[in-house]
Amino acid sequence: MTQTSITRSWVTSANGHADFPLQNLPLGVFSIDGGAPRSGVAIGDHIFDLEAALDAGLFEGTAKAAAEVTRGGQLNAFFQAGAPARKALRERLLQLLAEGSTLHGKIEAQGAKLLPLAANCLMHLPAKISDYTDFYVGIEHAQNVGKLFRPDNPLLPNYKYVPIGYHGRASTIRPSGTDVRRPKGQTLPAGQTEPVFGPCARLDYELELGIWIGQGNEMGDSIAIGDAADHIAGFCLLNDWSARDIQAWEYQPLGPFLSKSFITSISPWVVTAEALEPFRRAQPARPQGDPQPLPYLLDPRDQAAGAFNIELEVLLLTEAMREQNLPAHRLTLSNTRHMYWTVAQMVAHHSVNGCQLQAGDLFGSGTLSGPESGQFGSLLEITEGGKKPIELASGEVRKFLEDGDEIILRARCSRDGFASIGFGECRGKVLPAR
Amino acid sequence: MTQTSITRSWVTSANGHADFPLQNLPLGVFSIDGGAPRSGVAIGDHIFDLEAALDAGLFEGTAKAAAEVTRGGQLNAFFQAGAPARKALRERLLQLLAEGSTLHGKIEAQGAKLLPLAANCLMHLPAKISDYTDFYVGIEHAQNVGKLFRPDNPLLPNYKYVPIGYHGRASTIRPSGTDVRRPKGQTLPAGQTEPVFGPCARLDYELELGIWIGQGNEMGDSIAIGDAADHIAGFCLLNDWSARDIQAWEYQPLGPFLSKSFITSISPWVVTAEALEPFRRAQPARPQGDPQPLPYLLDPRDQAAGAFNIELEVLLLTEAMREQNLPAHRLTLSNTRHMYWTVAQMVAHHSVNGCQLQAGDLFGSGTLSGPESGQFGSLLEITEGGKKPIELASGEVRKFLEDGDEIILRARCSRDGFASIGFGECRGKVLPAR
Repeated sequence: MTQTSITRSWVTSANGHADFPLQNLPLGVFSIDGGAPRSGVAIGDHIFDLEAALDAGLFEGTAKAAAEVTRGGQLNAFFQAGAPARKALRERLLQLLAEGSTLHGKIEAQGAKLLPLAANCLMHLPAKISDYTDFYVGIEHAQNVGKLFRPDNPLLPNYKYVPIGYHGRASTIRPSGTDVRRPKGQTLPAGQTEPVFGPCARLDYELELGIWIGQGNEMGDSIAIGDAADHIAGFCLLNDWSARDIQAWEYQPLGPFLSKSFITSISPWVVTAEALEPFRRAQPARPQGDPQPLPYLLDPRDQAAGAFNIELEVLLLTEAMREQNLPAHRLTLSNTRHMYWTVAQMVAHHSVNGCQLQAGDLFGSGTLSGPESGQFGSLLEITEGGKKPIELASGEVRKFLEDGDEIILRARCSRDGFASIGFGECRGKVLPAR
Repeated sequence: MTQTSITRSWVTSANGHADFPLQNLPLGVFSIDGGAPRSGVAIGDHIFDLEAALDAGLFEGTAKAAAEVTRGGQLNAFFQAGAPARKALRERLLQLLAEGSTLHGKIEAQGAKLLPLAANCLMHLPAKISDYTDFYVGIEHAQNVGKLFRPDNPLLPNYKYVPIGYHGRASTIRPSGTDVRRPKGQTLPAGQTEPVFGPCARLDYELELGIWIGQGNEMGDSIAIGDAADHIAGFCLLNDWSARDIQAWEYQPLGPFLSKSFITSISPWVVTAEALEPFRRAQPARPQGDPQPLPYLLDPRDQAAGAFNIELEVLLLTEAMREQNLPAHRLTLSNTRHMYWTVAQMVAHHSVNGCQLQAGDLFGSGTLSGPESGQFGSLLEITEGGKKPIELASGEVRKFLEDGDEIILRARCSRDGFASIGFGECRGKVLPAR
């Protein structure tokens, strides 16, 4: 039973669903009415309650073992179980949820297995995140930002050799829907030599792909590039909220710190490698003159199919737009093809020094801007650091985010002959500083 | 019963012990012969088994509640319980272990409460570390390193306003005694424009104070400078092993990454704020011309007593020195007085943007060098980046660390009229690259 052979589900809202048709089956952790968080699978407008399904005896064999390790409100053990567990669970879910499934009646008879997503379900982080690493593999973003500081030499010499990344703050990663409190901090007013303290005045978003690490490695070992894909559990959307004024003052010489650590938002559903399989693509050829990756970053299979075709979108909804019932304003339409390094290259690079990765670690891709207007993945790029404000249908203008503004990230994968899938939303609304 | 009034313990090895006299009583997590890790207190050459003592009914009231949350092989809950729990436990331990304690016989009668430190006891990390932050508050180090790159302008403009820090890798923090596998990575050979891949050739140590976070804060809240000391659970030694050649090539623009994340070593005993109380000192006055800290970093009590007088030492023992039975070579003799910012200032700064701190988070101070030869806290400074090798009694020379070299950090607090205390060792031996 292949993915293409099953197209419809008896869960009717799944058929043609923008994000969660039968072909997607992303995993997440949810709770209802303050109950204990537990694992589920998004299908159409519903959550298929994995733990209830387990209790009802709907799984056996490898699929049962895989479902068992999703218990407990954290998917770390499931991530650690790797691709065989993921695939077995997926196959069984396809059987259970396909149109014409003989199990349809059985599932419905058990009751309470399909929960309306929108109702009382609160989504949580899908895993305990031990370490969070933010990469910088969006080359157009690196160039756009570099141009603001170094017009003639936007990319640093290491960029095309090193998948640049840095450690981020794990404790403030939150699921979509969590409000974003405007941070306070030190900033250096233009033309002055002494900093002032106060609320961030240049609050920004960054559009990123999130990567969930599956099986880890022991400290001192490395994950070879050819094995790296097996260490990835899934994907999400990530908004790397950024305080540009705090960042500009603090980041030399050790990198961004408080300008990022106040919150990072992610979409709560883990889209698996299996669901994304039809949307793999070759890593784009490097432009003439660019160096080849060093051997530890080079694998023919990864070059042939290690990249993804995922359309990425950012929307802005202001308080005034909500009041006037205006549609959200699209800030960004971009694509994962702007990644200069593949996710396998990130994994291989991160562990090449013996750094231990663990199931449930999260990577951010870095901002995935395109080269053209309309494709920029941050307001820093869109407004050129605040110099060119954007106008909204509400009559408002924006250089950076204001209190009440909501940012919504979306992602969509499409290909002829395949059902489109999406990631679900990653939303966050800005609250005034305390 | 004050600290000064009790000077001796019936545990005779504690009296005059370099690290663990009765006045110290640091907490740690240990195991014996592969058993489950559990909590204990270092006293002289022994570990006082806290869980066994609890089971024997030696605690009651607040002290009992405090000891109870040390169960389970991780001290996070004890850290979270804060100063009242720590103080109650300390008072009771002083009673139990003081010379003339009527409980001496009772403890011995129960048996197995005092375990020889050196024998079968394996020390573990004292807590689950969710996030690790490395600061850069050693101003002499910042100046020494800055001079190598910018002789006329060693300190960046933000240094005297911002307690500079960056996120580190939590997954590779290990207790003293863990071997250090030489990392591999990309480096740019001198005079070339293309990097090469191979084992680090400029492996270094960094002498740091480690700070354990106690009670945390909710995301969006900040810890005021006046409250910050209450959020610190204790202290340790920290070796921020550094691959200088990897660091030089990778660190722009987002800071150190793989050059640090292969391992960070810490001493396993948590020295409490109570044990360090006699060794507090005023934060040294800022030199003429230096700015005052911004208000959120300024507290009169912290300025009056927020710094520490802790002597810090680094020793090197090479393979040849071990073979020739030569004593370890002292590389560094420094002091925590070279911290430009207090630990309370670090806590207040880290959380001022609403970043959530959690019990068991670990801070590193940054390298604590003094201004003079013999006080430098890294080989980068001692050998001026490899230009001035050091000579050892074994006839060897060192620019950076070679395979088989062992680095030993020690710390000692002394003051007239008070028993000296130490931190125990933080050791690590370099193994060849895989």
